[in-house]
Amino acid sequence: MHHASTVDFLATCATLTDDTLAQRLPDETIEPARLHSAMRYSVLGGGKRIRPALAMAAATAVGGQPEQALVAACAVEVVHAYSLIHDDLPAMDDDELRRGRPTTHIQYDEATAILAGDALQALAFEWLSTEPGLTVETRLAMVRRLARASGSVGMVGGQAIDLGAVGKNLSLEQLEQMHRRKTGALIEACVHLGVLSVKGDQGGETLQQAQLATYARAIGLAFQVQDDLLDIEGDTSVIGKPQGSDLARSKPTYPALMGVDGARDYLATLLQQCRQSLATFGPEADALRGMAQFVVSRRY
Amino acid sequence: MHHASTVDFLATCATLTDDTLAQRLPDETIEPARLHSAMRYSVLGGGKRIRPALAMAAATAVGGQPEQALVAACAVEVVHAYSLIHDDLPAMDDDELRRGRPTTHIQYDEATAILAGDALQALAFEWLSTEPGLTVETRLAMVRRLARASGSVGMVGGQAIDLGAVGKNLSLEQLEQMHRRKTGALIEACVHLGVLSVKGDQGGETLQQAQLATYARAIGLAFQVQDDLLDIEGDTSVIGKPQGSDLARSKPTYPALMGVDGARDYLATLLQQCRQSLATFGPEADALRGMAQFVVSRRY
Repeated sequence: MHHASTVDFLATCATLTDDTLAQRLPDETIEPARLHSAMRYSVLGGGKRIRPALAMAAATAVGGQPEQALVAACAVEVVHAYSLIHDDLPAMDDDELRRGRPTTHIQYDEATAILAGDALQALAFEWLSTEPGLTVETRLAMVRRLARASGSVGMVGGQAIDLGAVGKNLSLEQLEQMHRRKTGALIEACVHLGVLSVKGDQGGETLQQAQLATYARAIGLAFQVQDDLLDIEGDTSVIGKPQGSDLARSKPTYPALMGVDGARDYLATLLQQCRQSLATFGPEADALRGMAQFVVSRRY
Repeated sequence: MHHASTVDFLATCATLTDDTLAQRLPDETIEPARLHSAMRYSVLGGGKRIRPALAMAAATAVGGQPEQALVAACAVEVVHAYSLIHDDLPAMDDDELRRGRPTTHIQYDEATAILAGDALQALAFEWLSTEPGLTVETRLAMVRRLARASGSVGMVGGQAIDLGAVGKNLSLEQLEQMHRRKTGALIEACVHLGVLSVKGDQGGETLQQAQLATYARAIGLAFQVQDDLLDIEGDTSVIGKPQGSDLARSKPTYPALMGVDGARDYLATLLQQCRQSLATFGPEADALRGMAQFVVSRRY
């Protein structure tokens, strides 16, 4: 189903990211050992590393190498990991399983899970601010972009809207607004940080960057629509969480609002938007094209 | 008991900080309204603003004006506020009262409290990274310093050690290590960020900065020793939390390890260290001197 080169690209990015994260995360022998163990458990527990791959694909699209985006990739991935730890808590989604393993608060305890999430967020900003291979302007632009994308008008805000929406009827526009923040903001940040890794902070936004921003918005939404479809169609053993869990909580979803066929059509439209936004790019954007295809056709 | 000029200085700093925080924090009318309301409730709930005052006092000690340290003051205060929200959660200290008001998870709900804390942490880094009055080097140095001070080897790490220590016998050295991280790291960061606000990032550490770091370490510990003494001696209506609550949880404290008189002697020694570290400074360090006196003799 997936183009072989995309599968290779994803595998390369995942290996690069996993190796770097394993190196950079504080060792379990450093005090407080239990906290550091929980941080490593949460971040190094597999995961598709789609966000790191997006940052690296964006870096290649503007003429760089995937490796140049490594610190950006690691930073967005630990922010993603911290958000999953907190989302899984009993007071939030109350999930006991993530990627087929016990969630952090089950494997450790709730207090350690809350603190591991808090420490991972701080670590993302520490990594970005201390990266010696980037200019101070670029590092600062990355901190700014990631802080905005993950805060109360970005990822955390989306999660708050999501929690408030359980059992309510959202309009399609409200659903989209929620996802634009909850998952879209961080996915857009991946693309921006990937570009910054190669081009640095150029002040304003170039045409190329605007096109990549359009791509980022479309792939962010596509990711969520496919997530909703998988929740209905997927198999627990493959997706790693109980199938139908969104429906069971009466969370609003794209299939619920548009029907399964409507959601599939919308997914095709979003894939088309991804492709069109890259129309003026050459083969250097093939990794981004492949990522879009991957996101809409993934089975897990 | 307190010198009138210190009381004035603290009041001025608190007003400056409160006004700026009220302006900078997202308005409750901005979506998600409940999240933004919880963020404002948690940050704008009074508080002594000792950390902002320390940043401003450090700024004046190196020849600046308190106002120059305002963004640093706001950033450290929202990090402090986020840590209190998370510390008060049922899975952590399970406190229902803070500064005489319901804690955030009681006033709102647990999920909102977790997210409000997460968003406040991101906001601190956003503010520092976007402050137009500082050079990019200085902003980046502040981000770096605050990220380290608040992460797994700083504030959050100290909280993890504290949680692991309940019911255990810590040595005095272990207790000190815990507090150096839990409260000391952020208090040290206040002094450093205050200096950075005026002097900028000068690469290495000057003698003056080393002296201020000694001051910061001593006042950080003094703060904790006095906190422990107040927990035994204080009155619930004054300190705003049930008196004796640390003892009731058999948390290790300075009075428990040194006796009340031993803890009072230690407090006097720390105050002396604060004064000596400022020996080569002139009247420009009077605010720092007054802060040290205030911290060891405060009744709340």
